[in-house]
Amino acid sequence: MTVVAACQLSLAVGDPDGNLAAAAGAIGQAAAAGAGLVVLPELCDSGYVFESAAEARTLASPASSSPALQQWHRLARQHGTVIVGGFCELGPDGQLFNSAALVDATGTRAVYRKAHLWDTEKLVFTPGDQPPPLVSLPFGQVSVMVCYDLEFPEWVRLAALAGADLIAAPVNWPAAPHPPAERPSEVVKVQAGAAVNGVFIAVADRCADERGVAWTGGSLIAGPDGYPLAGPVCADEPAVLTAGCDLAAARNKRITLHNDLLADRRPGLYPPG
Amino acid sequence: MTVVAACQLSLAVGDPDGNLAAAAGAIGQAAAAGAGLVVLPELCDSGYVFESAAEARTLASPASSSPALQQWHRLARQHGTVIVGGFCELGPDGQLFNSAALVDATGTRAVYRKAHLWDTEKLVFTPGDQPPPLVSLPFGQVSVMVCYDLEFPEWVRLAALAGADLIAAPVNWPAAPHPPAERPSEVVKVQAGAAVNGVFIAVADRCADERGVAWTGGSLIAGPDGYPLAGPVCADEPAVLTAGCDLAAARNKRITLHNDLLADRRPGLYPPG
Repeated sequence: MTVVAACQLSLAVGDPDGNLAAAAGAIGQAAAAGAGLVVLPELCDSGYVFESAAEARTLASPASSSPALQQWHRLARQHGTVIVGGFCELGPDGQLFNSAALVDATGTRAVYRKAHLWDTEKLVFTPGDQPPPLVSLPFGQVSVMVCYDLEFPEWVRLAALAGADLIAAPVNWPAAPHPPAERPSEVVKVQAGAAVNGVFIAVADRCADERGVAWTGGSLIAGPDGYPLAGPVCADEPAVLTAGCDLAAARNKRITLHNDLLADRRPGLYPPG
Repeated sequence: MTVVAACQLSLAVGDPDGNLAAAAGAIGQAAAAGAGLVVLPELCDSGYVFESAAEARTLASPASSSPALQQWHRLARQHGTVIVGGFCELGPDGQLFNSAALVDATGTRAVYRKAHLWDTEKLVFTPGDQPPPLVSLPFGQVSVMVCYDLEFPEWVRLAALAGADLIAAPVNWPAAPHPPAERPSEVVKVQAGAAVNGVFIAVADRCADERGVAWTGGSLIAGPDGYPLAGPVCADEPAVLTAGCDLAAARNKRITLHNDLLADRRPGLYPPG
């Protein structure tokens, strides 16, 4: 059983030091709760609501020298944990990517670039062109994707077919109206993605209004049956969610004597790509 | 605006006359509420919990002479409505299919054979090998799938990519334990399928214990944003849900200035089939 933590953080665009401090505080809190895996929000170093691509560029770093990734490496070593978080990546040819890294005590194990860009991100970032990574950790196989990626069932399926036990998902979910008695649609999609694939999904959103944009909150850890193990958070405030997750349990896709979530697919009948 | 009805019916295996009468009553009630489209449960003529394939065979009919389809044709003409319901189909080569038909005043417009079979259905039925149909009706484009099909995001996507505005889904959801404060996972999957594709989904489940099997209920009509327009039903009893649905609204997949639910897909990166 591994304790997984999803950290909902208060972030601010253009305040990388404050953002790093918020992340460090939450990682410490998660580690104190025994977390073996800690998930942080999307664009956890830079903030999200850029005035322009130029502003985003001033807040971007190459993965090899990102202060955020260096901090996560240091904290992963110190706490003996694994950290997944979003960062504003400056690519080798000067492109900007909305990326997430998986970092453990040995360093950066994977960098993933968001493939499905949301709204004005398209004016700032280059979309990734690689599938979600799969990282073998002592406690299980972990994949990574970012925010709007989760809303493409093909992408979640791709990670599950590759063998992911858990998908760690940094997000920034801009608040949208929803019927008051209903869970936000983003949360429902995460639950369904977990259930149809039989995987854990740990989602860390941010909070705190940024340049007039509010956030859904709703950070959660969903189990392979789709029901929340922790969260969804319903308040616009920082939170550290934790849940004990037996990642190996996600490898059993059998749901009845005759049914298997993945083997029951009919790929020959599905749309090409 | 078209009134769509989802009818949760009390059915009994081996009582085709009683089952037809239950369907006729609900169709009449839906028509009185102005329904232009009425959805009935899976295997609405035969019931579900067969003792054997041989028993199912005694309850199966070819689509061309099915008493259920004949009844729906008569009632569709009488009420000026469209009816989608599940029936136990005897195929031309003697196979049994877990099928659904879409019937209007002109007759049977489509027969769909469930492609993803649940549990012991695999011992009785031959899986379909055709995609969900798309039927052009005066009020919109309607597709049809059956129960467990809904739990394959590829299948719902296929219908949406083909141009479905609404998916009519006869189901029989055997009850499974779920946390008491949570909606059943099947309902969550329907909501997510509607939201990620921007389509209406109308689900009609059955009720009433059959040979020791209880049912989830949970019939619902979900809008293209994934939130329920009617239901989910929370009781093990018959119900006729109705909701006004502007099917053409499902053709607008734009969700922000820069985002389109279907155009944002990255098919070149998705798994083949």
